[in-house]
Amino acid sequence: MHTPPALKPALDALAQAMDSRFDRLLAVPEDPRRRLYEAMRHATMDGGKRMRPLLTVAACDLFRVEKDRSLRVALAIECVHCYSLVHDDMPCMDDDDVRRGKPTVHKAFDEATAVLAGDALQTLAFEILADEATHDDPNIRIQLIQELAKAAGPAGMVGGQAMDLAAETTTFDLPTTTRLQQLKTGALLAFCIEAGAIMGKATPEQRTRLRGYAHDLGLAFQIADDLLDVEGSSARTGKAVAKDMAAGKATFVSLLGVERARQQADFLIDQAINHLASFGAEADLLRAIARFAIERDH
Amino acid sequence: MHTPPALKPALDALAQAMDSRFDRLLAVPEDPRRRLYEAMRHATMDGGKRMRPLLTVAACDLFRVEKDRSLRVALAIECVHCYSLVHDDMPCMDDDDVRRGKPTVHKAFDEATAVLAGDALQTLAFEILADEATHDDPNIRIQLIQELAKAAGPAGMVGGQAMDLAAETTTFDLPTTTRLQQLKTGALLAFCIEAGAIMGKATPEQRTRLRGYAHDLGLAFQIADDLLDVEGSSARTGKAVAKDMAAGKATFVSLLGVERARQQADFLIDQAINHLASFGAEADLLRAIARFAIERDH
Repeated sequence: MHTPPALKPALDALAQAMDSRFDRLLAVPEDPRRRLYEAMRHATMDGGKRMRPLLTVAACDLFRVEKDRSLRVALAIECVHCYSLVHDDMPCMDDDDVRRGKPTVHKAFDEATAVLAGDALQTLAFEILADEATHDDPNIRIQLIQELAKAAGPAGMVGGQAMDLAAETTTFDLPTTTRLQQLKTGALLAFCIEAGAIMGKATPEQRTRLRGYAHDLGLAFQIADDLLDVEGSSARTGKAVAKDMAAGKATFVSLLGVERARQQADFLIDQAINHLASFGAEADLLRAIARFAIERDH
Repeated sequence: MHTPPALKPALDALAQAMDSRFDRLLAVPEDPRRRLYEAMRHATMDGGKRMRPLLTVAACDLFRVEKDRSLRVALAIECVHCYSLVHDDMPCMDDDDVRRGKPTVHKAFDEATAVLAGDALQTLAFEILADEATHDDPNIRIQLIQELAKAAGPAGMVGGQAMDLAAETTTFDLPTTTRLQQLKTGALLAFCIEAGAIMGKATPEQRTRLRGYAHDLGLAFQIADDLLDVEGSSARTGKAVAKDMAAGKATFVSLLGVERARQQADFLIDQAINHLASFGAEADLLRAIARFAIERDH
Protein backbone atom coordinates (compact mmCIF):
# COMPACT_ATOMS: atom_id res chain seq x y z
CA MET A 1 0.00 0.00 0.00
CA HIS A 2 1.33 3.43 -0.96
CA THR A 3 1.33 5.86 1.97
CA PRO A 4 2.72 9.41 1.79
CA PRO A 5 5.93 9.51 3.86
CA ALA A 6 4.63 12.02 6.41
CA LEU A 7 1.76 9.74 7.31
CA LYS A 8 3.49 6.39 7.73
CA PRO A 9 5.18 7.01 11.12
CA ALA A 10 2.03 8.64 12.49
CA LEU A 11 -0.06 5.67 11.39
CA ASP A 12 2.38 3.12 12.82
CA ALA A 13 2.67 4.85 16.18
CA LEU A 14 -1.09 5.20 16.37
CA ALA A 15 -1.75 1.56 15.48
CA GLN A 16 0.51 0.54 18.34
CA ALA A 17 -1.05 3.00 20.78
CA MET A 18 -4.57 1.81 19.94
CA ASP A 19 -3.69 -1.86 20.27
CA SER A 20 -2.04 -1.37 23.64
CA ARG A 21 -5.05 0.62 24.87
CA PHE A 22 -7.53 -1.99 23.66
CA ASP A 23 -5.36 -4.63 25.31
CA ARG A 24 -5.72 -2.87 28.67
CA LEU A 25 -9.39 -1.94 28.20
CA LEU A 26 -10.37 -5.47 27.26
CA ALA A 27 -8.40 -7.58 29.73
CA VAL A 28 -10.06 -11.01 29.59
CA PRO A 29 -11.78 -11.90 32.88
CA GLU A 30 -11.45 -15.39 34.35
CA ASP A 31 -15.16 -16.11 34.28
CA PRO A 32 -17.83 -17.17 31.77
CA ARG A 33 -17.64 -13.75 30.06
CA ARG A 34 -14.26 -14.79 28.65
CA ARG A 35 -15.65 -15.48 25.15
CA LEU A 36 -17.36 -12.06 25.01
CA TYR A 37 -14.12 -10.26 25.81
CA GLU A 38 -12.15 -12.39 23.34
CA ALA A 39 -14.67 -11.47 20.65
CA MET A 40 -14.34 -7.77 21.55
CA ARG A 41 -10.55 -8.05 21.28
CA HIS A 42 -10.89 -9.82 17.93
CA ALA A 43 -13.12 -6.98 16.72
CA THR A 44 -10.85 -4.16 17.82
CA MET A 45 -7.21 -5.24 17.98
CA ASP A 46 -4.77 -5.45 15.07
CA GLY A 47 -7.40 -3.49 13.23
CA GLY A 48 -7.34 -1.79 9.85
CA LYS A 49 -5.98 1.61 8.98
CA ARG A 50 -7.16 3.33 12.17
CA MET A 51 -8.31 6.19 9.97
CA ARG A 52 -10.78 7.52 12.54
CA PRO A 53 -8.30 7.53 15.44
CA LEU A 54 -5.80 9.25 13.14
CA LEU A 55 -8.29 11.97 12.21
CA THR A 56 -9.24 12.41 15.86
CA VAL A 57 -5.68 12.74 17.07
CA ALA A 58 -4.76 15.03 14.15
CA ALA A 59 -7.72 17.31 14.94
CA CYS A 60 -6.85 17.33 18.65
CA ASP A 61 -3.21 18.12 17.78
CA LEU A 62 -4.34 21.36 16.10
CA PHE A 63 -5.28 22.55 19.56
CA ARG A 64 -2.38 20.90 21.38
CA VAL A 65 -4.68 18.56 23.33
CA GLU A 66 -2.73 16.24 25.65
CA LYS A 67 -1.98 13.01 23.76
CA ASP A 68 -3.34 10.74 26.49
CA ARG A 69 -6.70 12.50 26.24
CA SER A 70 -6.92 12.59 22.46
CA LEU A 71 -6.14 8.85 22.39
CA ARG A 72 -9.03 8.20 24.78
CA VAL A 73 -11.41 9.99 22.44
CA ALA A 74 -9.93 8.07 19.50
CA LEU A 75 -10.44 4.81 21.40
CA ALA A 76 -14.12 5.60 22.02
CA ILE A 77 -14.70 6.40 18.35
CA GLU A 78 -12.92 3.23 17.25
CA CYS A 79 -15.17 1.23 19.63
CA VAL A 80 -18.20 2.60 17.76
CA HIS A 81 -16.63 1.98 14.35
CA CYS A 82 -15.67 -1.60 15.24
CA TYR A 83 -19.08 -2.36 16.77
CA SER A 84 -20.73 -1.23 13.53
CA LEU A 85 -18.45 -3.51 11.49
CA VAL A 86 -19.18 -6.53 13.70
CA HIS A 87 -22.93 -6.09 13.30
CA ASP A 88 -22.66 -5.13 9.61
CA ASP A 89 -20.72 -8.32 8.80
CA MET A 90 -23.41 -10.59 10.24
CA PRO A 91 -25.29 -13.01 7.94
CA CYS A 92 -28.52 -11.00 8.24
CA MET A 93 -26.67 -7.83 7.14
CA ASP A 94 -23.74 -7.88 4.68
CA ASP A 95 -22.87 -11.53 5.36
CA ASP A 96 -19.09 -11.14 5.20
CA ASP A 97 -16.79 -13.96 6.29
CA VAL A 98 -13.53 -12.01 6.13
CA ARG A 99 -12.55 -8.57 7.44
CA ARG A 100 -9.00 -7.18 7.40
CA GLY A 101 -7.78 -10.61 6.34
CA LYS A 102 -9.21 -12.28 9.45
CA PRO A 103 -12.47 -14.20 9.91
CA THR A 104 -15.27 -11.87 10.96
CA VAL A 105 -16.42 -12.06 14.60
CA HIS A 106 -19.47 -14.23 13.94
CA LYS A 107 -17.23 -16.64 11.97
CA ALA A 108 -14.42 -16.76 14.53
CA PHE A 109 -16.93 -17.01 17.40
CA ASP A 110 -20.68 -17.26 16.74
CA GLU A 111 -23.55 -14.95 15.83
CA ALA A 112 -24.87 -14.51 19.36
CA THR A 113 -21.42 -13.51 20.60
CA ALA A 114 -21.08 -11.10 17.66
CA VAL A 115 -24.34 -9.38 18.62
CA LEU A 116 -23.21 -9.03 22.24
CA ALA A 117 -19.64 -7.98 21.42
CA GLY A 118 -20.98 -5.20 19.19
CA ASP A 119 -23.46 -4.11 21.84
CA ALA A 120 -20.78 -4.03 24.53
CA LEU A 121 -18.37 -2.03 22.36
CA GLN A 122 -20.99 0.64 21.83
CA THR A 123 -21.56 0.90 25.58
CA LEU A 124 -17.82 1.13 26.24
CA ALA A 125 -17.51 4.08 23.86
CA PHE A 126 -19.80 6.18 26.03
CA GLU A 127 -18.18 4.91 29.22
CA ILE A 128 -14.75 6.03 27.98
CA LEU A 129 -15.99 9.51 27.05
CA ALA A 130 -17.84 9.95 30.37
CA ASP A 131 -14.70 9.20 32.41
CA GLU A 132 -12.94 12.23 33.87
CA ALA A 133 -9.63 10.99 32.46
CA THR A 134 -10.97 12.17 29.07
CA HIS A 135 -11.29 15.80 30.25
CA ASP A 136 -11.55 17.65 33.59
CA ASP A 137 -14.49 19.69 32.38
CA PRO A 138 -17.75 17.70 32.50
CA ASN A 139 -19.24 20.07 29.91
CA ILE A 140 -16.63 18.94 27.40
CA ARG A 141 -17.37 15.29 28.12
CA ILE A 142 -21.12 15.90 27.79
CA GLN A 143 -20.59 17.62 24.43
CA LEU A 144 -18.51 14.68 23.19
CA ILE A 145 -21.24 12.24 24.27
CA GLN A 146 -24.02 14.29 22.68
CA GLU A 147 -22.19 14.63 19.38
CA LEU A 148 -21.10 10.98 19.31
CA ALA A 149 -24.68 9.86 19.99
CA LYS A 150 -25.92 12.02 17.10
CA ALA A 151 -23.19 10.75 14.77
CA ALA A 152 -23.71 7.08 15.68
CA GLY A 153 -27.48 6.86 16.14
CA PRO A 154 -30.55 6.86 13.88
CA ALA A 155 -29.78 10.42 12.72
CA GLY A 156 -26.26 9.27 11.79
CA MET A 157 -24.44 5.99 11.21
CA VAL A 158 -27.26 3.58 12.07
CA GLY A 159 -29.67 5.69 10.01
CA GLY A 160 -27.27 5.33 7.08
CA GLN A 161 -27.09 1.56 7.58
CA ALA A 162 -30.91 1.48 7.54
CA MET A 163 -30.89 3.41 4.27
CA ASP A 164 -28.38 0.90 2.94
CA LEU A 165 -30.85 -1.91 3.68
CA ALA A 166 -33.57 0.02 1.86
CA ALA A 167 -31.20 0.48 -1.09
CA GLU A 168 -31.21 -3.27 -1.66
CA THR A 169 -34.81 -3.10 -2.87
CA THR A 170 -34.99 0.44 -4.31
CA THR A 171 -32.59 2.33 -6.56
CA PHE A 172 -31.58 5.66 -5.02
CA ASP A 173 -30.77 8.79 -7.00
CA LEU A 174 -27.51 10.68 -6.44
CA PRO A 175 -28.78 13.07 -3.71
CA THR A 176 -30.20 10.12 -1.75
CA THR A 177 -26.99 8.12 -2.22
CA THR A 178 -24.99 11.11 -1.03
CA ARG A 179 -27.17 11.42 2.04
CA LEU A 180 -26.87 7.67 2.71
CA GLN A 181 -23.08 7.92 2.67
CA GLN A 182 -23.06 11.10 4.74
CA LEU A 183 -25.01 9.28 7.44
CA LYS A 184 -23.39 5.87 7.17
CA THR A 185 -19.72 6.89 7.14
CA GLY A 186 -19.61 10.70 6.95
CA ALA A 187 -21.24 11.36 10.31
CA LEU A 188 -18.70 9.40 12.37
CA LEU A 189 -15.74 10.71 10.32
CA ALA A 190 -17.05 14.24 10.88
CA PHE A 191 -17.31 13.54 14.59
CA CYS A 192 -13.60 12.66 14.71
CA ILE A 193 -12.82 16.22 13.61
CA GLU A 194 -15.58 17.76 15.73
CA ALA A 195 -14.18 15.92 18.75
CA GLY A 196 -10.88 17.74 18.23
CA ALA A 197 -12.73 21.05 18.08
CA ILE A 198 -14.65 20.20 21.28
CA MET A 199 -11.54 19.03 23.17
CA GLY A 200 -9.62 22.10 21.97
CA LYS A 201 -12.46 24.55 22.66
CA ALA A 202 -12.22 25.81 19.08
CA THR A 203 -13.71 29.18 18.10
CA PRO A 204 -16.94 29.11 16.05
CA GLU A 205 -14.95 30.16 12.98
CA GLN A 206 -12.46 27.33 13.46
CA ARG A 207 -15.35 24.90 13.89
CA THR A 208 -16.96 25.99 10.64
CA ARG A 209 -13.72 25.45 8.74
CA LEU A 210 -13.10 22.06 10.31
CA ARG A 211 -16.66 21.01 9.52
CA GLY A 212 -16.09 21.95 5.88
CA TYR A 213 -12.93 19.84 5.85
CA ALA A 214 -14.71 16.88 7.47
CA HIS A 215 -17.68 17.07 5.12
CA ASP A 216 -15.58 17.05 1.94
CA LEU A 217 -13.17 14.44 3.27
CA GLY A 218 -16.02 12.12 4.25
CA LEU A 219 -17.54 12.14 0.78
CA ALA A 220 -14.16 11.74 -0.93
CA PHE A 221 -13.35 8.85 1.39
CA GLN A 222 -16.56 7.08 0.44
CA ILE A 223 -15.99 7.58 -3.29
CA ALA A 224 -12.49 6.17 -2.86
CA ASP A 225 -14.04 3.15 -1.10
CA ASP A 226 -16.47 2.66 -3.97
CA LEU A 227 -13.57 2.84 -6.44
CA LEU A 228 -11.66 0.23 -4.44
CA ASP A 229 -14.76 -1.95 -4.46
CA VAL A 230 -14.71 -1.92 -8.26
CA GLU A 231 -10.97 -1.86 -8.93
CA GLY A 232 -9.34 -3.44 -5.88
CA SER A 233 -8.48 -7.08 -5.48
CA SER A 234 -9.68 -9.17 -2.57
CA ALA A 235 -6.09 -9.60 -1.40
CA ARG A 236 -5.51 -5.86 -1.22
CA THR A 237 -8.81 -4.73 0.31
CA GLY A 238 -9.39 -7.87 2.40
CA LYS A 239 -12.98 -8.15 1.25
CA ALA A 240 -14.75 -9.65 -1.74
CA VAL A 241 -14.45 -7.42 -4.81
CA ALA A 242 -17.35 -5.49 -6.31
CA LYS A 243 -19.58 -6.94 -3.62
CA ASP A 244 -21.54 -3.73 -3.18
CA MET A 245 -22.00 -3.41 -6.93
CA ALA A 246 -23.13 -7.03 -7.17
CA ALA A 247 -25.65 -6.46 -4.36
CA GLY A 248 -27.17 -3.71 -6.52
CA LYS A 249 -26.36 -1.06 -3.93
CA ALA A 250 -26.25 2.56 -5.00
CA THR A 251 -22.65 3.80 -5.14
CA PHE A 252 -21.11 6.93 -6.59
CA VAL A 253 -19.25 4.79 -9.07
CA SER A 254 -22.36 3.01 -10.33
CA LEU A 255 -24.08 6.36 -10.74
CA LEU A 256 -21.20 8.47 -12.10
CA GLY A 257 -18.86 5.96 -13.68
CA VAL A 258 -15.22 5.41 -12.63
CA GLU A 259 -13.71 8.47 -14.33
CA ARG A 260 -16.15 11.08 -13.07
CA ALA A 261 -16.18 9.53 -9.60
CA ARG A 262 -12.39 9.85 -9.42
CA GLN A 263 -12.51 13.48 -10.58
CA GLN A 264 -15.16 14.24 -7.99
CA ALA A 265 -13.00 12.71 -5.25
CA ASP A 266 -9.98 14.77 -6.34
CA PHE A 267 -12.08 17.94 -6.37
CA LEU A 268 -13.45 17.23 -2.89
CA ILE A 269 -9.96 16.68 -1.48
CA ASP A 270 -8.69 19.99 -2.90
CA GLN A 271 -11.68 21.67 -1.35
CA ALA A 272 -11.12 19.91 1.98
CA ILE A 273 -7.50 21.10 2.07
CA ASN A 274 -8.56 24.67 1.22
CA HIS A 275 -10.68 24.77 4.38
CA LEU A 276 -7.48 24.31 6.40
CA ALA A 277 -5.66 27.36 4.96
CA SER A 278 -5.89 29.49 8.13
CA PHE A 279 -4.45 26.74 10.35
CA GLY A 280 -0.93 26.90 8.91
CA ALA A 281 1.65 24.16 9.25
CA GLU A 282 -0.04 22.60 12.27
CA ALA A 283 -2.70 21.22 9.95
CA ASP A 284 -0.14 19.34 7.81
CA LEU A 285 -1.22 15.98 9.22
CA LEU A 286 -4.87 16.68 8.35
CA ARG A 287 -3.73 17.64 4.82
CA ALA A 288 -1.71 14.45 4.47
CA ILE A 289 -4.71 12.42 5.65
CA ALA A 290 -6.90 14.04 3.01
CA ARG A 291 -4.44 13.13 0.24
CA PHE A 292 -4.05 9.62 1.63
CA ALA A 293 -7.82 9.12 1.62
CA ILE A 294 -7.95 9.10 -2.17
CA GLU A 295 -4.50 7.67 -2.87
CA ARG A 296 -5.12 4.37 -1.14
CA ASP A 297 -4.31 1.54 -3.47
CA HIS A 298 -3.99 3.39 -6.76
CA MET B 1 -53.16 -10.01 36.63
CA HIS B 2 -53.39 -9.16 40.33
CA THR B 3 -51.87 -5.76 41.12
CA PRO B 4 -51.93 -4.22 44.60
CA PRO B 5 -54.36 -1.26 44.56
CA ALA B 6 -51.70 1.39 45.27
CA LEU B 7 -49.70 0.36 42.25
CA LYS B 8 -52.35 0.15 39.53
CA PRO B 9 -52.92 3.90 38.99
CA ALA B 10 -49.18 4.58 39.09
CA LEU B 11 -48.53 1.87 36.51
CA ASP B 12 -51.32 3.05 34.21
CA ALA B 13 -50.23 6.69 34.32
CA LEU B 14 -46.65 5.68 33.71
CA ALA B 15 -47.52 3.40 30.79
CA GLN B 16 -49.29 6.32 29.16
CA ALA B 17 -46.46 8.77 29.87
CA MET B 18 -43.86 6.39 28.43
CA ASP B 19 -45.86 5.70 25.28
CA SER B 20 -46.43 9.39 24.60
CA ARG B 21 -42.72 10.11 25.12
CA PHE B 22 -41.63 7.29 22.82
CA ASP B 23 -44.17 8.56 20.28
CA ARG B 24 -42.49 11.99 20.26
CA LEU B 25 -38.92 10.65 20.46
CA LEU B 26 -39.45 8.23 17.57
CA ALA B 27 -41.44 10.33 15.10
CA VAL B 28 -41.13 8.45 11.80
CA PRO B 29 -39.13 10.41 9.19
CA GLU B 30 -40.31 10.59 5.59
CA ASP B 31 -37.17 9.00 4.15
CA PRO B 32 -35.68 5.51 3.75
CA ARG B 33 -35.07 5.30 7.50
CA ARG B 34 -38.83 4.86 7.97
CA ARG B 35 -38.60 1.10 8.60
CA LEU B 36 -35.87 1.57 11.24
CA TYR B 37 -38.01 4.02 13.20
CA GLU B 38 -41.09 1.81 12.87
CA ALA B 39 -39.09 -1.09 14.28
CA MET B 40 -37.90 1.09 17.18
CA ARG B 41 -41.52 2.08 17.89
CA HIS B 42 -42.57 -1.58 17.74
CA ALA B 43 -39.82 -2.42 20.25
CA THR B 44 -40.67 0.30 22.74
CA MET B 45 -44.34 1.34 22.55
CA ASP B 46 -47.29 -0.44 24.18
CA GLY B 47 -44.62 -2.28 26.10
CA GLY B 48 -44.83 -4.61 29.08
CA LYS B 49 -45.09 -3.72 32.74
CA ARG B 50 -42.70 -0.74 32.56
CA MET B 51 -41.16 -2.06 35.77
CA ARG B 52 -37.88 -0.21 35.23
CA PRO B 53 -39.48 3.18 34.54
CA LEU B 54 -41.68 2.65 37.60
CA LEU B 55 -38.68 1.92 39.81
CA THR B 56 -36.84 4.94 38.40
CA VAL B 57 -39.72 7.34 38.95
CA ALA B 58 -40.39 5.90 42.42
CA ALA B 59 -36.74 6.35 43.40
CA CYS B 60 -36.70 9.90 42.00
CA ASP B 61 -39.93 10.67 43.88
CA LEU B 62 -38.16 9.93 47.17
CA PHE B 63 -36.10 13.06 46.48
CA ARG B 64 -38.93 15.07 44.90
CA VAL B 65 -37.20 15.16 41.50
CA GLU B 66 -39.27 17.04 38.91
CA LYS B 67 -41.48 14.52 37.08
CA ASP B 68 -40.41 15.64 33.63
CA ARG B 69 -36.80 14.88 34.51
CA SER B 70 -37.41 11.54 36.18
CA LEU B 71 -39.45 10.46 33.14
CA ARG B 72 -36.51 11.31 30.87
CA VAL B 73 -34.23 9.07 32.92
CA ALA B 74 -36.90 6.36 32.87
CA LEU B 75 -37.14 6.70 29.08
CA ALA B 76 -33.38 6.24 28.67
CA ILE B 77 -33.38 3.13 30.86
CA GLU B 78 -36.36 1.68 28.97
CA CYS B 79 -34.46 2.27 25.69
CA VAL B 80 -31.65 0.07 27.02
CA HIS B 81 -34.06 -2.57 28.32
CA CYS B 82 -35.97 -2.71 25.01
CA TYR B 83 -32.78 -2.83 22.93
CA SER B 84 -31.61 -5.83 24.96
CA LEU B 85 -34.94 -7.60 24.38
CA VAL B 86 -34.83 -6.98 20.61
CA HIS B 87 -31.35 -8.48 20.34
CA ASP B 88 -32.08 -11.26 22.85
CA ASP B 89 -35.13 -12.41 20.86
CA MET B 90 -33.15 -12.88 17.64
CA PRO B 91 -32.78 -16.38 16.13
CA CYS B 92 -29.07 -16.54 17.04
CA MET B 93 -29.91 -15.72 20.67
CA ASP B 94 -33.15 -16.91 22.36
CA ASP B 95 -35.06 -17.28 19.07
CA ASP B 96 -38.39 -15.97 20.33
CA ASP B 97 -41.24 -15.21 17.92
CA VAL B 98 -43.55 -13.56 20.41
CA ARG B 99 -42.96 -10.87 23.05
CA ARG B 100 -45.71 -9.21 25.08
CA GLY B 101 -48.27 -10.92 22.83
CA LYS B 102 -46.85 -9.26 19.69
CA PRO B 103 -44.45 -10.65 17.09
CA THR B 104 -40.85 -9.88 18.03
CA VAL B 105 -39.06 -7.17 16.02
CA HIS B 106 -37.17 -9.56 13.74
CA LYS B 107 -40.49 -11.34 13.00
CA ALA B 108 -42.52 -8.17 12.40
CA PHE B 109 -39.67 -6.63 10.36
CA ASP B 110 -36.49 -8.60 9.60
CA GLU B 111 -33.28 -9.58 11.37
CA ALA B 112 -31.13 -6.81 9.91
CA THR B 113 -33.66 -4.18 11.01
CA ALA B 114 -33.80 -5.79 14.46
CA VAL B 115 -30.01 -5.49 14.83
CA LEU B 116 -30.10 -1.81 13.81
CA ALA B 117 -33.18 -0.94 15.88
CA GLY B 118 -31.50 -2.37 18.97
CA ASP B 119 -28.27 -0.54 18.22
CA ALA B 120 -30.08 2.76 17.71
CA LEU B 121 -32.08 2.40 20.93
CA GLN B 122 -28.89 1.97 22.90
CA THR B 123 -27.43 5.13 21.36
CA LEU B 124 -30.62 7.08 22.11
CA ALA B 125 -30.42 6.14 25.78
CA PHE B 126 -27.11 7.97 26.14
CA GLU B 127 -28.31 10.88 24.02
CA ILE B 128 -31.34 11.36 26.30
CA LEU B 129 -29.20 11.34 29.46
CA ALA B 130 -26.64 13.75 27.98
CA ASP B 131 -29.29 16.36 27.13
CA GLU B 132 -29.51 19.29 29.54
CA ALA B 133 -33.28 18.77 29.81
CA THR B 134 -32.40 15.76 32.00
CA HIS B 135 -30.59 17.93 34.58
CA ASP B 136 -28.96 21.41 34.69
CA ASP B 137 -25.85 20.05 36.34
CA PRO B 138 -23.53 18.34 33.82
CA ASN B 139 -21.94 16.38 36.67
CA ILE B 140 -25.27 14.71 37.39
CA ARG B 141 -25.69 13.81 33.71
CA ILE B 142 -22.15 12.43 33.55
CA GLN B 143 -22.78 10.30 36.64
CA LEU B 144 -25.98 8.92 35.09
CA ILE B 145 -24.10 8.06 31.88
CA GLN B 146 -21.21 6.43 33.75
CA GLU B 147 -23.49 4.29 35.88
CA LEU B 148 -25.78 3.34 32.98
CA ALA B 149 -22.74 2.30 30.91
CA LYS B 150 -21.50 0.12 33.78
CA ALA B 151 -24.94 -1.42 34.29
CA ALA B 152 -25.55 -2.09 30.59
CA GLY B 153 -22.08 -3.06 29.35
CA PRO B 154 -19.79 -6.09 29.65
CA ALA B 155 -19.53 -5.60 33.45
CA GLY B 156 -23.35 -5.57 33.63
CA MET B 157 -26.26 -6.59 31.43
CA VAL B 158 -24.33 -7.68 28.31
CA GLY B 159 -21.86 -9.56 30.53
CA GLY B 160 -24.84 -11.41 32.03
CA GLN B 161 -26.18 -12.23 28.57
CA ALA B 162 -22.75 -13.61 27.65
CA MET B 163 -22.83 -15.79 30.78
CA ASP B 164 -26.28 -16.94 29.73
CA LEU B 165 -24.84 -18.14 26.42
CA ALA B 166 -22.08 -19.99 28.27
CA ALA B 167 -24.74 -21.59 30.50
CA GLU B 168 -26.16 -23.40 27.48
CA THR B 169 -23.10 -25.63 27.34
CA THR B 170 -22.04 -25.71 31.03
CA THR B 171 -24.07 -26.18 34.19
CA PHE B 172 -23.49 -23.34 36.64
CA ASP B 173 -23.60 -23.70 40.42
CA LEU B 174 -25.78 -21.43 42.55
CA PRO B 175 -23.20 -18.66 43.16
CA THR B 176 -22.47 -18.44 39.41
CA THR B 177 -26.19 -18.47 38.59
CA THR B 178 -26.72 -15.71 41.13
CA ARG B 179 -23.95 -13.66 39.56
CA LEU B 180 -25.36 -14.29 36.06
CA GLN B 181 -28.72 -12.92 37.15
CA GLN B 182 -27.19 -10.00 39.00
CA LEU B 183 -25.44 -8.95 35.83
CA LYS B 184 -28.17 -9.82 33.32
CA THR B 185 -31.15 -8.22 35.05
CA GLY B 186 -29.98 -7.02 38.47
CA ALA B 187 -27.52 -4.41 37.21
CA LEU B 188 -30.05 -2.43 35.17
CA LEU B 189 -32.75 -2.74 37.88
CA ALA B 190 -30.20 -1.47 40.40
CA PHE B 191 -29.37 1.44 38.12
CA CYS B 192 -33.04 2.51 38.14
CA ILE B 193 -32.77 3.06 41.90
CA GLU B 194 -29.24 4.48 41.69
CA ALA B 195 -30.48 6.97 39.08
CA GLY B 196 -32.97 8.29 41.62
CA ALA B 197 -30.18 8.67 44.16
CA ILE B 198 -28.01 10.50 41.59
CA MET B 199 -30.82 12.80 40.44
CA GLY B 200 -31.78 13.50 44.07
CA LYS B 201 -28.18 13.97 45.28
CA ALA B 202 -28.76 11.37 47.99
CA THR B 203 -26.46 11.17 51.02
CA PRO B 204 -23.98 8.25 51.14
CA GLU B 205 -26.13 6.63 53.83
CA GLN B 206 -29.28 6.93 51.71
CA ARG B 207 -27.40 5.44 48.76
CA THR B 208 -26.27 2.44 50.77
CA ARG B 209 -29.84 1.72 51.85
CA LEU B 210 -31.23 2.13 48.36
CA ARG B 211 -28.52 -0.17 46.98
CA GLY B 212 -29.52 -2.81 49.52
CA TYR B 213 -33.14 -2.47 48.41
CA ALA B 214 -32.18 -2.72 44.71
CA HIS B 215 -29.94 -5.73 45.25
CA ASP B 216 -32.56 -7.78 47.08
CA LEU B 217 -35.36 -6.70 44.77
CA GLY B 218 -33.36 -7.65 41.68
CA LEU B 219 -32.74 -11.18 42.88
CA ALA B 220 -36.34 -11.65 44.04
CA PHE B 221 -37.55 -10.36 40.70
CA GLN B 222 -35.45 -12.92 38.85
CA ILE B 223 -36.64 -15.79 41.04
CA ALA B 224 -40.23 -14.69 40.39
CA ASP B 225 -39.47 -14.74 36.67
CA ASP B 226 -38.06 -18.25 36.93
CA LEU B 227 -41.19 -19.35 38.82
CA LEU B 228 -43.39 -17.83 36.11
CA ASP B 229 -41.33 -19.69 33.53
CA VAL B 230 -42.21 -22.97 35.23
CA GLU B 231 -45.75 -22.25 36.40
CA GLY B 232 -47.11 -19.60 34.08
CA SER B 233 -49.09 -20.21 30.94
CA SER B 234 -48.06 -18.84 27.57
CA ALA B 235 -51.23 -16.75 27.47
CA ARG B 236 -50.40 -15.05 30.75
CA THR B 237 -46.69 -14.42 30.31
CA GLY B 238 -46.80 -13.94 26.54
CA LYS B 239 -43.87 -16.28 25.99
CA ALA B 240 -43.44 -20.01 25.64
CA VAL B 241 -43.61 -21.83 28.98
CA ALA B 242 -40.61 -23.43 30.66
CA LYS B 243 -38.48 -22.39 27.72
CA ASP B 244 -35.48 -21.55 29.89
CA MET B 245 -35.78 -24.87 31.71
CA ALA B 246 -36.05 -26.74 28.41
CA ALA B 247 -32.95 -24.96 27.12
CA GLY B 248 -31.08 -26.39 30.13
CA LYS B 249 -30.32 -22.92 31.47
CA ALA B 250 -29.41 -22.55 35.11
CA THR B 251 -32.31 -21.03 37.05
CA PHE B 252 -32.95 -20.65 40.77
CA VAL B 253 -35.94 -22.93 40.41
CA SER B 254 -34.02 -25.73 38.72
CA LEU B 255 -31.39 -25.52 41.44
CA LEU B 256 -33.56 -24.96 44.52
CA GLY B 257 -36.94 -26.39 43.53
CA VAL B 258 -40.21 -24.42 43.41
CA GLU B 259 -40.91 -24.29 47.15
CA ARG B 260 -37.50 -23.14 48.32
CA ALA B 261 -37.21 -20.67 45.45
CA ARG B 262 -40.51 -19.09 46.47
CA GLN B 263 -39.41 -18.89 50.13
CA GLN B 264 -36.15 -17.29 49.08
CA ALA B 265 -38.01 -14.67 47.03
CA ASP B 266 -40.31 -13.87 49.98
CA PHE B 267 -37.32 -13.52 52.27
CA LEU B 268 -35.53 -11.19 49.85
CA ILE B 269 -38.58 -8.95 49.51
CA ASP B 270 -38.92 -8.60 53.30
CA GLN B 271 -35.27 -7.70 53.43
CA ALA B 272 -35.63 -5.20 50.56
CA ILE B 273 -38.50 -3.46 52.38
CA ASN B 274 -36.51 -3.33 55.61
CA HIS B 275 -33.82 -1.28 53.85
CA LEU B 276 -36.45 1.43 53.28
CA ALA B 277 -37.37 1.87 56.98
CA SER B 278 -35.73 5.28 57.39
CA PHE B 279 -37.47 6.75 54.35
CA GLY B 280 -40.95 6.78 55.92
CA ALA B 281 -44.19 7.04 53.96
CA GLU B 282 -42.50 8.54 50.90
CA ALA B 283 -41.07 5.10 50.10
CA ASP B 284 -44.52 3.48 49.98
CA LEU B 285 -44.40 3.17 46.22
CA LEU B 286 -41.02 1.38 46.37
CA ARG B 287 -42.52 -0.96 49.00
CA ALA B 288 -45.55 -1.67 46.83
CA ILE B 289 -43.25 -2.41 43.87
CA ALA B 290 -41.29 -4.89 45.95
CA ARG B 291 -44.44 -6.76 46.92
CA PHE B 292 -45.71 -6.66 43.36
CA ALA B 293 -42.45 -8.14 42.05
CA ILE B 294 -43.20 -11.51 43.66
CA GLU B 295 -46.99 -11.42 43.50
CA ARG B 296 -47.19 -11.25 39.73
CA ASP B 297 -49.46 -13.97 38.47
CA HIS B 298 -49.85 -16.11 41.57
